[in-house]
Amino acid sequence: MTRTAFFISDGTGITAESLGRSLLAQFENVDIRMLTKPYIDSVDKARTLVEVINATAVRDGQEPIIIDTIVDETIRGVIREATGFKIDIFSTFLKPLEEELATRSTYSVGRTHSIGRDDVYMDRIHSVHFALDNDDGARTHQYDKADVILVGVSRCGKTPTSLYLALQFGIRAANYPLTEDDQDEDGTLKLPKALAQHRHKLFGLTIDPRRLAAIRHERRPNSRYSSMDQCAQEVGQAEALYRQLHIPYIDTTRFSVEEISTRMIAETGLTRRFSPR
Amino acid sequence: MTRTAFFISDGTGITAESLGRSLLAQFENVDIRMLTKPYIDSVDKARTLVEVINATAVRDGQEPIIIDTIVDETIRGVIREATGFKIDIFSTFLKPLEEELATRSTYSVGRTHSIGRDDVYMDRIHSVHFALDNDDGARTHQYDKADVILVGVSRCGKTPTSLYLALQFGIRAANYPLTEDDQDEDGTLKLPKALAQHRHKLFGLTIDPRRLAAIRHERRPNSRYSSMDQCAQEVGQAEALYRQLHIPYIDTTRFSVEEISTRMIAETGLTRRFSPR
Repeated sequence: MTRTAFFISDGTGITAESLGRSLLAQFENVDIRMLTKPYIDSVDKARTLVEVINATAVRDGQEPIIIDTIVDETIRGVIREATGFKIDIFSTFLKPLEEELATRSTYSVGRTHSIGRDDVYMDRIHSVHFALDNDDGARTHQYDKADVILVGVSRCGKTPTSLYLALQFGIRAANYPLTEDDQDEDGTLKLPKALAQHRHKLFGLTIDPRRLAAIRHERRPNSRYSSMDQCAQEVGQAEALYRQLHIPYIDTTRFSVEEISTRMIAETGLTRRFSPR
Repeated sequence: MTRTAFFISDGTGITAESLGRSLLAQFENVDIRMLTKPYIDSVDKARTLVEVINATAVRDGQEPIIIDTIVDETIRGVIREATGFKIDIFSTFLKPLEEELATRSTYSVGRTHSIGRDDVYMDRIHSVHFALDNDDGARTHQYDKADVILVGVSRCGKTPTSLYLALQFGIRAANYPLTEDDQDEDGTLKLPKALAQHRHKLFGLTIDPRRLAAIRHERRPNSRYSSMDQCAQEVGQAEALYRQLHIPYIDTTRFSVEEISTRMIAETGLTRRFSPR
Protein backbone atom coordinates (compact mmCIF):
# COMPACT_ATOMS: atom_id res chain seq x y z
CA MET A 1 0.00 0.00 0.00
CA THR A 2 1.51 3.29 -1.09
CA ARG A 3 1.67 6.26 1.19
CA THR A 4 2.13 9.78 -0.09
CA ALA A 5 4.58 12.35 1.24
CA PHE A 6 4.17 16.06 0.49
CA PHE A 7 7.19 18.36 0.63
CA ILE A 8 5.72 21.85 0.91
CA SER A 9 7.46 25.20 0.67
CA ASP A 10 6.74 28.86 0.02
CA GLY A 11 9.93 28.95 -2.06
CA THR A 12 11.64 26.49 -4.40
CA GLY A 13 10.92 23.46 -2.23
CA ILE A 14 14.57 22.42 -2.42
CA THR A 15 15.14 22.43 1.34
CA ALA A 16 11.88 20.68 2.22
CA GLU A 17 12.44 18.02 -0.43
CA SER A 18 16.08 17.51 0.46
CA LEU A 19 15.26 17.02 4.13
CA GLY A 20 12.19 14.93 3.39
CA ARG A 21 14.06 12.56 1.10
CA SER A 22 16.88 12.22 3.64
CA LEU A 23 14.44 11.27 6.37
CA LEU A 24 12.33 8.93 4.28
CA ALA A 25 15.41 7.23 2.78
CA GLN A 26 15.74 5.68 6.23
CA PHE A 27 12.54 3.73 5.62
CA GLU A 28 13.41 1.82 2.51
CA ASN A 29 10.83 -0.90 3.14
CA VAL A 30 7.96 1.56 3.09
CA ASP A 31 6.47 2.38 -0.29
CA ILE A 32 6.23 6.16 -0.37
CA ARG A 33 5.23 8.37 -3.28
CA MET A 34 6.92 11.76 -2.91
CA LEU A 35 5.45 15.01 -4.22
CA THR A 36 7.07 18.43 -3.99
CA LYS A 37 4.77 21.44 -3.81
CA PRO A 38 6.77 24.67 -4.15
CA TYR A 39 5.62 28.30 -4.07
CA ILE A 40 2.74 27.77 -1.65
CA ASP A 41 2.95 31.45 -0.74
CA SER A 42 -0.66 32.45 -0.19
CA VAL A 43 -3.57 31.30 1.95
CA ASP A 44 -5.52 30.48 -1.21
CA LYS A 45 -2.81 28.22 -2.58
CA ALA A 46 -2.49 26.57 0.84
CA ARG A 47 -6.26 25.92 0.98
CA THR A 48 -6.23 24.34 -2.48
CA LEU A 49 -3.32 22.16 -1.46
CA VAL A 50 -5.09 21.06 1.72
CA GLU A 51 -7.93 19.79 -0.47
CA VAL A 52 -5.45 17.82 -2.56
CA ILE A 53 -3.84 16.36 0.56
CA ASN A 54 -7.18 15.38 2.07
CA ALA A 55 -8.29 13.75 -1.16
CA THR A 56 -5.00 11.84 -1.24
CA ALA A 57 -5.59 10.62 2.31
CA VAL A 58 -8.94 9.19 1.26
CA ARG A 59 -7.58 7.60 -1.91
CA ASP A 60 -4.50 6.10 -0.23
CA GLY A 61 -6.50 4.94 2.77
CA GLN A 62 -3.55 6.24 4.79
CA GLU A 63 -2.55 9.60 6.21
CA PRO A 64 -0.04 11.43 4.01
CA ILE A 65 3.25 12.59 5.48
CA ILE A 66 3.52 16.37 5.36
CA ILE A 67 6.93 18.02 5.58
CA ASP A 68 6.97 21.78 5.22
CA THR A 69 9.36 24.71 5.39
CA ILE A 70 6.76 27.47 5.14
CA VAL A 71 7.84 30.58 7.04
CA ASP A 72 4.59 32.50 7.23
CA GLU A 73 2.63 31.43 10.30
CA THR A 74 -0.78 32.05 8.75
CA ILE A 75 -0.06 29.92 5.70
CA ARG A 76 1.53 27.26 7.88
CA GLY A 77 -1.61 27.33 10.00
CA VAL A 78 -3.73 26.46 6.96
CA ILE A 79 -1.48 23.51 6.08
CA ARG A 80 -1.72 22.32 9.68
CA GLU A 81 -5.44 21.67 9.13
CA ALA A 82 -4.75 19.03 6.48
CA THR A 83 -5.15 15.36 7.28
CA GLY A 84 -1.72 13.86 7.76
CA PHE A 85 1.36 13.24 9.83
CA LYS A 86 3.12 16.60 10.03
CA ILE A 87 6.78 17.49 10.31
CA ASP A 88 6.84 21.25 10.74
CA ILE A 89 10.48 22.23 10.46
CA PHE A 90 10.21 25.92 11.21
CA SER A 91 7.92 25.55 14.21
CA THR A 92 10.24 22.90 15.60
CA PHE A 93 13.51 24.75 15.25
CA LEU A 94 12.87 28.50 14.91
CA LYS A 95 11.58 29.04 18.42
CA PRO A 96 14.61 27.46 20.15
CA LEU A 97 16.90 29.33 17.75
CA GLU A 98 15.17 32.61 18.62
CA GLU A 99 15.88 31.96 22.28
CA GLU A 100 19.47 30.96 21.66
CA LEU A 101 20.17 33.97 19.45
CA ALA A 102 18.12 36.23 21.74
CA THR A 103 16.40 37.81 18.77
CA ARG A 104 13.17 37.37 16.82
CA SER A 105 13.38 35.78 13.39
CA THR A 106 12.71 37.94 10.38
CA TYR A 107 9.63 37.13 8.46
CA SER A 108 10.81 36.38 4.96
CA VAL A 109 9.21 34.05 2.49
CA GLY A 110 11.70 32.11 0.45
CA ARG A 111 14.65 34.22 1.47
CA THR A 112 17.29 31.52 1.20
CA HIS A 113 17.00 30.96 -2.49
CA SER A 114 16.88 34.52 -3.71
CA ILE A 115 19.87 35.81 -5.59
CA GLY A 116 20.74 38.42 -3.07
CA ARG A 117 24.14 39.67 -4.02
CA ASP A 118 25.01 40.60 -7.57
CA ASP A 119 28.52 39.23 -7.30
CA VAL A 120 27.18 35.75 -6.56
CA TYR A 121 25.15 35.88 -9.75
CA MET A 122 28.11 37.09 -11.78
CA ASP A 123 30.39 34.46 -10.29
CA ARG A 124 27.91 31.81 -11.21
CA ILE A 125 27.52 32.96 -14.80
CA HIS A 126 31.28 33.25 -15.19
CA SER A 127 31.90 29.79 -13.79
CA VAL A 128 29.28 28.15 -16.00
CA HIS A 129 30.68 29.78 -19.10
CA PHE A 130 34.20 28.90 -18.01
CA ALA A 131 33.19 25.25 -17.70
CA LEU A 132 31.54 25.35 -21.14
CA ASP A 133 34.43 27.12 -22.85
CA ASN A 134 36.92 24.73 -21.32
CA ASP A 135 34.96 21.51 -21.75
CA ASP A 136 36.65 18.40 -23.14
CA GLY A 137 39.96 20.12 -23.82
CA ALA A 138 38.32 22.53 -26.26
CA ARG A 139 40.89 25.13 -25.34
CA THR A 140 43.78 25.18 -22.94
CA HIS A 141 45.01 28.78 -22.83
CA GLN A 142 42.73 29.68 -19.90
CA TYR A 143 44.08 27.00 -17.57
CA ASP A 144 45.91 29.61 -15.50
CA LYS A 145 42.43 30.86 -14.50
CA ALA A 146 41.07 27.39 -13.68
CA ASP A 147 40.55 26.37 -10.06
CA VAL A 148 40.79 22.72 -11.05
CA ILE A 149 41.29 20.70 -14.23
CA LEU A 150 39.43 17.40 -14.31
CA VAL A 151 41.05 14.63 -16.31
CA GLY A 152 39.78 11.21 -17.28
CA VAL A 153 38.76 8.98 -20.16
CA SER A 154 35.80 9.85 -22.38
CA ARG A 155 32.42 9.53 -20.58
CA CYS A 156 33.72 9.02 -17.07
CA GLY A 157 31.72 12.02 -15.77
CA LYS A 158 34.01 15.01 -16.34
CA THR A 159 31.46 17.32 -17.97
CA PRO A 160 28.55 16.93 -15.50
CA THR A 161 31.00 17.32 -12.61
CA SER A 162 32.55 20.48 -14.08
CA LEU A 163 29.10 22.00 -14.57
CA TYR A 164 27.91 21.05 -11.10
CA LEU A 165 31.01 22.59 -9.52
CA ALA A 166 30.32 25.78 -11.49
CA LEU A 167 26.60 26.03 -10.77
CA GLN A 168 26.63 25.05 -7.12
CA PHE A 169 29.92 26.39 -5.88
CA GLY A 170 31.22 28.89 -8.45
CA ILE A 171 34.33 26.77 -8.91
CA ARG A 172 36.02 27.22 -12.29
CA ALA A 173 36.56 23.71 -13.55
CA ALA A 174 38.10 22.88 -16.90
CA ASN A 175 38.21 19.32 -18.12
CA TYR A 176 40.55 17.46 -20.45
CA PRO A 177 40.10 14.00 -21.94
CA LEU A 178 42.75 11.29 -21.67
CA THR A 179 42.90 9.51 -25.03
CA GLU A 180 45.08 7.15 -27.01
CA ASP A 181 46.60 10.20 -28.72
CA ASP A 182 48.72 10.62 -25.63
CA GLN A 183 50.02 7.07 -25.46
CA ASP A 184 53.64 6.49 -26.42
CA GLU A 185 54.94 3.64 -28.61
CA ASP A 186 54.67 0.94 -25.96
CA GLY A 187 51.08 1.99 -25.16
CA THR A 188 51.82 3.87 -21.95
CA LEU A 189 49.71 6.97 -21.36
CA LYS A 190 51.76 10.15 -20.97
CA LEU A 191 50.60 13.38 -19.42
CA PRO A 192 49.28 15.53 -22.27
CA LYS A 193 51.56 18.51 -22.97
CA ALA A 194 48.82 21.07 -22.33
CA LEU A 195 48.55 19.83 -18.74
CA ALA A 196 52.24 19.67 -17.88
CA GLN A 197 52.52 23.11 -16.34
CA HIS A 198 49.25 22.76 -14.40
CA ARG A 199 49.92 19.49 -12.61
CA HIS A 200 48.98 20.90 -9.21
CA LYS A 201 45.48 21.68 -10.55
CA LEU A 202 44.75 18.22 -11.90
CA PHE A 203 42.12 15.97 -10.42
CA GLY A 204 41.45 12.56 -11.92
CA LEU A 205 38.21 10.68 -12.40
CA THR A 206 38.11 6.96 -12.95
CA ILE A 207 35.30 4.48 -13.42
CA ASP A 208 34.64 0.76 -13.49
CA PRO A 209 35.32 -0.42 -17.07
CA ARG A 210 32.04 -2.38 -17.20
CA ARG A 211 30.06 0.71 -16.30
CA LEU A 212 32.05 2.78 -18.78
CA ALA A 213 31.31 0.26 -21.52
CA ALA A 214 27.59 0.46 -20.71
CA ILE A 215 27.63 4.27 -20.85
CA ARG A 216 29.60 4.35 -24.09
CA HIS A 217 27.37 1.67 -25.55
CA GLU A 218 24.43 4.09 -25.25
CA ARG A 219 26.34 6.53 -27.38
CA ARG A 220 27.99 4.26 -29.95
CA PRO A 221 26.60 0.73 -29.72
CA ASN A 222 28.88 -2.18 -30.62
CA SER A 223 31.85 0.01 -31.46
CA ARG A 224 35.49 -0.40 -30.53
CA TYR A 225 34.94 2.72 -28.39
CA SER A 226 32.36 0.94 -26.25
CA SER A 227 34.05 -2.48 -26.14
CA MET A 228 35.05 -3.96 -22.80
CA ASP A 229 38.65 -4.40 -23.97
CA GLN A 230 39.01 -0.81 -25.01
CA CYS A 231 37.38 0.55 -21.84
CA ALA A 232 39.52 -1.66 -19.58
CA GLN A 233 42.68 -0.64 -21.38
CA GLU A 234 41.92 3.11 -21.22
CA VAL A 235 40.89 3.03 -17.57
CA GLY A 236 43.97 0.99 -16.63
CA GLN A 237 46.25 3.49 -18.35
CA ALA A 238 44.55 6.47 -16.75
CA GLU A 239 44.80 5.03 -13.25
CA ALA A 240 48.46 4.15 -13.80
CA LEU A 241 49.09 7.77 -14.78
CA TYR A 242 47.31 9.10 -11.68
CA ARG A 243 49.37 6.89 -9.41
CA GLN A 244 52.63 7.62 -11.17
CA LEU A 245 52.19 11.41 -10.99
CA HIS A 246 50.39 11.43 -7.60
CA ILE A 247 47.29 13.01 -9.12
CA PRO A 248 44.43 12.71 -6.62
CA TYR A 249 41.47 10.84 -8.08
CA ILE A 250 38.00 9.50 -7.40
CA ASP A 251 36.21 6.44 -8.70
CA THR A 252 32.89 7.79 -10.01
CA THR A 253 31.28 4.39 -10.47
CA ARG A 254 29.04 4.43 -7.44
CA PHE A 255 28.89 8.15 -6.77
CA SER A 256 26.48 10.84 -7.84
CA VAL A 257 27.73 14.12 -9.27
CA GLU A 258 26.95 15.71 -5.89
CA GLU A 259 29.13 13.19 -4.11
CA ILE A 260 32.00 13.45 -6.57
CA SER A 261 31.94 17.26 -6.31
CA THR A 262 31.68 17.53 -2.54
CA ARG A 263 34.32 14.82 -2.02
CA MET A 264 36.66 16.65 -4.36
CA ILE A 265 36.21 19.83 -2.37
CA ALA A 266 36.71 18.00 0.91
CA GLU A 267 39.86 16.25 -0.32
CA THR A 268 41.57 19.08 -2.15
CA GLY A 269 40.58 22.12 -0.15
CA LEU A 270 39.13 23.79 -3.26
CA THR A 271 37.41 27.00 -2.20
CA ARG A 272 33.75 27.53 -2.95
CA ARG A 273 33.18 31.00 -4.41
CA PHE A 274 29.65 30.95 -3.07
CA SER A 275 27.31 28.58 -1.34
CA PRO A 276 24.63 26.40 -2.80
CA ARG A 277 21.15 27.82 -2.55
CA MET B 1 30.55 39.61 17.23
CA THR B 2 30.50 36.71 14.79
CA ARG B 3 29.00 33.39 15.66
CA THR B 4 29.87 30.21 13.80
CA ALA B 5 27.40 27.65 12.50
CA PHE B 6 28.52 24.13 11.59
CA PHE B 7 26.47 22.07 9.13
CA ILE B 8 27.59 18.50 9.69
CA SER B 9 26.80 15.40 7.68
CA ASP B 10 28.05 11.87 7.06
CA GLY B 11 27.28 12.42 3.37
CA THR B 12 27.53 15.40 1.02
CA GLY B 13 26.27 17.90 3.58
CA ILE B 14 23.75 19.24 1.08
CA THR B 15 20.69 18.59 3.24
CA ALA B 16 22.24 19.88 6.47
CA GLU B 17 23.50 23.01 4.77
CA SER B 18 20.28 23.64 2.89
CA LEU B 19 18.22 23.37 6.07
CA GLY B 20 20.74 25.31 8.13
CA ARG B 21 20.84 28.20 5.69
CA SER B 22 17.04 28.28 5.51
CA LEU B 23 16.75 28.50 9.27
CA LEU B 24 19.54 31.03 9.77
CA ALA B 25 18.28 33.20 6.91
CA GLN B 26 15.50 34.10 9.31
CA PHE B 27 18.03 35.89 11.52
CA GLU B 28 19.46 38.40 9.14
CA ASN B 29 20.62 40.74 11.90
CA VAL B 30 22.87 38.12 13.44
CA ASP B 31 26.36 37.84 12.02
CA ILE B 32 26.89 34.14 11.39
CA ARG B 33 29.82 32.45 9.69
CA MET B 34 28.64 29.19 8.12
CA LEU B 35 30.84 26.14 7.66
CA THR B 36 29.82 22.87 6.03
CA LYS B 37 31.54 19.70 7.22
CA PRO B 38 30.64 16.76 4.97
CA TYR B 39 31.68 13.10 5.16
CA ILE B 40 31.96 12.94 8.95
CA ASP B 41 31.46 9.19 8.72
CA SER B 42 33.70 7.82 11.46
CA VAL B 43 34.14 8.31 15.19
CA ASP B 44 37.68 9.57 14.57
CA LYS B 45 36.56 12.25 12.14
CA ALA B 46 33.81 13.24 14.55
CA ARG B 47 36.29 13.56 17.43
CA THR B 48 38.59 15.77 15.35
CA LEU B 49 35.64 17.93 14.39
CA VAL B 50 34.56 18.27 18.02
CA GLU B 51 38.00 19.71 18.78
CA VAL B 52 37.57 22.22 15.96
CA ILE B 53 34.13 23.19 17.24
CA ASN B 54 35.34 23.60 20.82
CA ALA B 55 38.29 25.75 19.69
CA THR B 56 35.86 27.86 17.66
CA ALA B 57 33.68 28.35 20.73
CA VAL B 58 36.67 29.69 22.65
CA ARG B 59 37.83 31.94 19.82
CA ASP B 60 34.33 33.32 19.08
CA GLY B 61 33.55 33.74 22.76
CA GLN B 62 30.15 32.32 21.83
CA GLU B 63 28.71 28.85 21.45
CA PRO B 64 28.63 27.67 17.85
CA ILE B 65 25.37 26.51 16.31
CA ILE B 66 25.56 22.85 15.32
CA ILE B 67 23.14 21.45 12.76
CA ASP B 68 23.66 17.84 11.77
CA THR B 69 22.10 15.12 9.65
CA ILE B 70 24.31 12.26 10.80
CA VAL B 71 22.47 8.96 10.75
CA ASP B 72 24.78 6.76 12.83
CA GLU B 73 23.90 7.08 16.50
CA THR B 74 27.44 6.51 17.73
CA ILE B 75 28.92 9.24 15.54
CA ARG B 76 26.03 11.55 16.42
CA GLY B 77 26.78 10.83 20.06
CA VAL B 78 30.33 12.12 19.64
CA ILE B 79 29.14 15.34 18.01
CA ARG B 80 26.69 15.80 20.86
CA GLU B 81 29.63 16.25 23.23
CA ALA B 82 30.80 19.39 21.42
CA THR B 83 30.24 22.81 22.94
CA GLY B 84 27.38 24.45 21.10
CA PHE B 85 23.69 24.89 20.48
CA LYS B 86 22.58 21.70 18.75
CA ILE B 87 19.88 21.05 16.20
CA ASP B 88 19.83 17.31 15.74
CA ILE B 89 17.56 16.68 12.80
CA PHE B 90 17.51 12.90 12.81
CA SER B 91 16.97 12.52 16.55
CA THR B 92 14.15 15.04 16.34
CA PHE B 93 12.23 13.55 13.45
CA LEU B 94 13.21 9.91 12.95
CA LYS B 95 11.68 8.62 16.18
CA PRO B 96 8.20 10.07 15.51
CA LEU B 97 8.42 8.86 11.90
CA GLU B 98 9.27 5.36 13.09
CA GLU B 99 6.15 5.36 15.22
CA GLU B 100 3.98 6.75 12.45
CA LEU B 101 5.28 4.26 9.89
CA ALA B 102 5.28 1.46 12.47
CA THR B 103 8.74 0.34 11.36
CA ARG B 104 12.34 0.88 12.38
CA SER B 105 14.47 3.08 10.18
CA THR B 106 17.26 1.50 8.18
CA TYR B 107 20.73 2.41 9.25
CA SER B 108 22.30 3.88 6.16
CA VAL B 109 25.03 6.48 6.04
CA GLY B 110 24.57 8.91 3.21
CA ARG B 111 21.93 6.88 1.48
CA THR B 112 20.04 9.78 -0.09
CA HIS B 113 22.82 10.98 -2.30
CA SER B 114 24.06 7.71 -3.71
CA ILE B 115 23.41 7.08 -7.35
CA GLY B 116 21.19 4.12 -6.78
CA ARG B 117 19.56 3.39 -10.06
CA ASP B 118 21.53 3.23 -13.25
CA ASP B 119 18.77 4.79 -15.29
CA VAL B 120 18.90 7.95 -13.19
CA TYR B 121 22.58 8.27 -13.93
CA MET B 122 22.04 7.71 -17.64
CA ASP B 123 19.17 10.19 -17.74
CA ARG B 124 21.34 12.78 -16.13
CA ILE B 125 24.25 12.29 -18.51
CA HIS B 126 21.90 12.37 -21.48
CA SER B 127 20.20 15.54 -20.30
CA VAL B 128 23.46 17.38 -19.66
CA HIS B 129 24.80 16.48 -23.08
CA PHE B 130 21.48 17.40 -24.65
CA ALA B 131 21.70 20.85 -23.05
CA LEU B 132 25.28 21.28 -24.24
CA ASP B 133 24.60 20.09 -27.78
CA ASN B 134 21.58 22.35 -28.03
CA ASP B 135 23.00 25.42 -26.33
CA ASP B 136 22.56 28.85 -27.90
CA GLY B 137 20.83 27.59 -31.02
CA ALA B 138 23.90 25.53 -31.98
CA ARG B 139 21.66 23.02 -33.67
CA THR B 140 17.93 22.75 -34.08
CA HIS B 141 17.27 19.31 -35.55
CA GLN B 142 16.87 17.68 -32.11
CA TYR B 143 14.07 19.99 -30.97
CA ASP B 144 11.53 17.18 -31.34
CA LYS B 145 13.37 15.51 -28.45
CA ALA B 146 13.47 18.62 -26.27
CA ASP B 147 11.20 18.89 -23.23
CA VAL B 148 11.44 22.67 -23.38
CA ILE B 149 13.17 25.30 -25.52
CA LEU B 150 14.28 28.39 -23.63
CA VAL B 151 14.33 31.62 -25.63
CA GLY B 152 15.64 35.05 -24.74
CA VAL B 153 18.23 37.70 -25.56
CA SER B 154 21.93 37.03 -25.15
CA ARG B 155 23.01 36.69 -21.48
CA CYS B 156 19.58 36.65 -19.90
CA GLY B 157 20.32 33.31 -18.18
CA LYS B 158 19.33 30.67 -20.74
CA THR B 159 22.46 28.52 -20.49
CA PRO B 160 22.73 28.19 -16.69
CA THR B 161 19.00 27.47 -16.52
CA SER B 162 19.20 24.78 -19.21
CA LEU B 163 22.09 23.11 -17.40
CA TYR B 164 20.40 23.30 -14.02
CA LEU B 165 17.23 21.73 -15.41
CA ALA B 166 19.36 18.93 -16.87
CA LEU B 167 21.50 18.25 -13.81
CA GLN B 168 18.83 18.52 -11.15
CA PHE B 169 15.73 17.24 -12.87
CA GLY B 170 16.83 15.39 -16.01
CA ILE B 171 14.79 17.78 -18.13
CA ARG B 172 16.02 18.12 -21.71
CA ALA B 173 16.25 21.84 -22.28
CA ALA B 174 17.47 23.40 -25.51
CA ASN B 175 17.98 27.15 -25.75
CA TYR B 176 17.82 29.58 -28.62
CA PRO B 177 18.93 33.23 -28.68
CA LEU B 178 16.66 36.04 -29.82
CA THR B 179 18.78 38.43 -31.88
CA GLU B 180 18.47 41.27 -34.34
CA ASP B 181 18.86 38.75 -37.15
CA ASP B 182 15.21 37.91 -36.62
CA GLN B 183 13.90 41.47 -36.75
CA ASP B 184 12.00 42.49 -39.84
CA GLU B 185 12.40 45.80 -41.72
CA ASP B 186 10.49 47.90 -39.19
CA GLY B 187 12.56 46.45 -36.33
CA THR B 188 9.90 44.07 -35.03
CA LEU B 189 11.21 40.76 -33.73
CA LYS B 190 9.77 37.73 -35.50
CA LEU B 191 9.71 34.18 -34.23
CA PRO B 192 12.84 32.52 -35.65
CA LYS B 193 11.96 29.93 -38.30
CA ALA B 194 13.63 27.07 -36.42
CA LEU B 195 11.19 27.58 -33.56
CA ALA B 196 7.96 27.87 -35.54
CA GLN B 197 6.96 24.22 -35.36
CA HIS B 198 7.88 23.94 -31.66
CA ARG B 199 5.87 26.86 -30.28
CA HIS B 200 4.24 24.75 -27.58
CA LYS B 201 7.69 23.96 -26.15
CA LEU B 202 8.89 27.56 -25.91
CA PHE B 203 9.53 29.26 -22.61
CA GLY B 204 10.78 32.84 -22.52
CA LEU B 205 13.25 34.51 -20.20
CA THR B 206 13.41 38.25 -19.78
CA ILE B 207 15.54 40.54 -17.66
CA ASP B 208 15.76 44.13 -16.53
CA PRO B 209 17.71 46.03 -19.23
CA ARG B 210 19.96 47.70 -16.62
CA ARG B 211 20.96 44.35 -15.20
CA LEU B 212 21.48 42.95 -18.69
CA ALA B 213 23.74 45.88 -19.55
CA ALA B 214 25.80 45.22 -16.43
CA ILE B 215 26.15 41.53 -17.26
CA ARG B 216 27.06 42.21 -20.89
CA HIS B 217 29.48 44.90 -19.80
CA GLU B 218 31.51 42.25 -17.97
CA ARG B 219 31.86 40.40 -21.24
CA ARG B 220 32.34 43.26 -23.73
CA PRO B 221 32.90 46.56 -21.92
CA ASN B 222 31.71 49.75 -23.57
CA SER B 223 30.35 48.03 -26.66
CA ARG B 224 27.11 48.56 -28.53
CA TYR B 225 26.23 45.04 -27.27
CA SER B 226 26.40 46.18 -23.65
CA SER B 227 24.87 49.64 -24.12
CA MET B 228 21.67 50.55 -22.26
CA ASP B 229 19.93 51.49 -25.53
CA GLN B 230 20.70 48.18 -27.18
CA CYS B 231 19.72 46.14 -24.11
CA ALA B 232 16.44 48.03 -23.66
CA GLN B 233 15.57 47.64 -27.32
CA GLU B 234 16.28 43.89 -27.39
CA VAL B 235 14.42 43.19 -24.16
CA GLY B 236 11.42 45.24 -25.29
CA GLN B 237 11.24 43.32 -28.55
CA ALA B 238 11.56 39.96 -26.83
CA GLU B 239 8.78 40.73 -24.35
CA ALA B 240 6.52 41.99 -27.13
CA LEU B 241 7.06 38.69 -28.95
CA TYR B 242 6.23 36.63 -25.84
CA ARG B 243 3.00 38.54 -25.31
CA GLN B 244 1.99 38.42 -28.95
CA LEU B 245 2.48 34.65 -29.23
CA HIS B 246 1.37 33.85 -25.66
CA ILE B 247 4.74 32.35 -24.82
CA PRO B 248 4.96 31.90 -21.02
CA TYR B 249 7.92 33.79 -19.58
CA ILE B 250 9.78 34.70 -16.41
CA ASP B 251 11.71 37.80 -15.44
CA THR B 252 15.08 36.46 -14.26
CA THR B 253 16.28 39.74 -12.77
CA ARG B 254 15.72 38.93 -9.14
CA PHE B 255 15.63 35.15 -9.29
CA SER B 256 18.31 32.53 -8.84
CA VAL B 257 18.70 29.70 -11.32
CA GLU B 258 16.99 27.44 -8.75
CA GLU B 259 13.98 29.73 -8.61
CA ILE B 260 13.72 30.18 -12.36
CA SER B 261 13.88 26.41 -12.87
CA THR B 262 11.42 25.42 -10.16
CA ARG B 263 8.99 28.18 -11.16
CA MET B 264 9.13 27.03 -14.77
CA ILE B 265 8.31 23.50 -13.68
CA ALA B 266 5.49 24.70 -11.45
CA GLU B 267 4.00 26.91 -14.18
CA THR B 268 4.32 24.61 -17.18
CA GLY B 269 3.83 21.18 -15.69
CA LEU B 270 7.18 20.02 -17.11
CA THR B 271 7.91 16.54 -15.79
CA ARG B 272 11.06 15.86 -13.82
CA ARG B 273 12.77 12.70 -15.06
CA PHE B 274 14.28 12.19 -11.63
CA SER B 275 14.53 13.98 -8.35
CA PRO B 276 17.28 16.17 -7.02
CA ARG B 277 19.71 14.40 -4.74
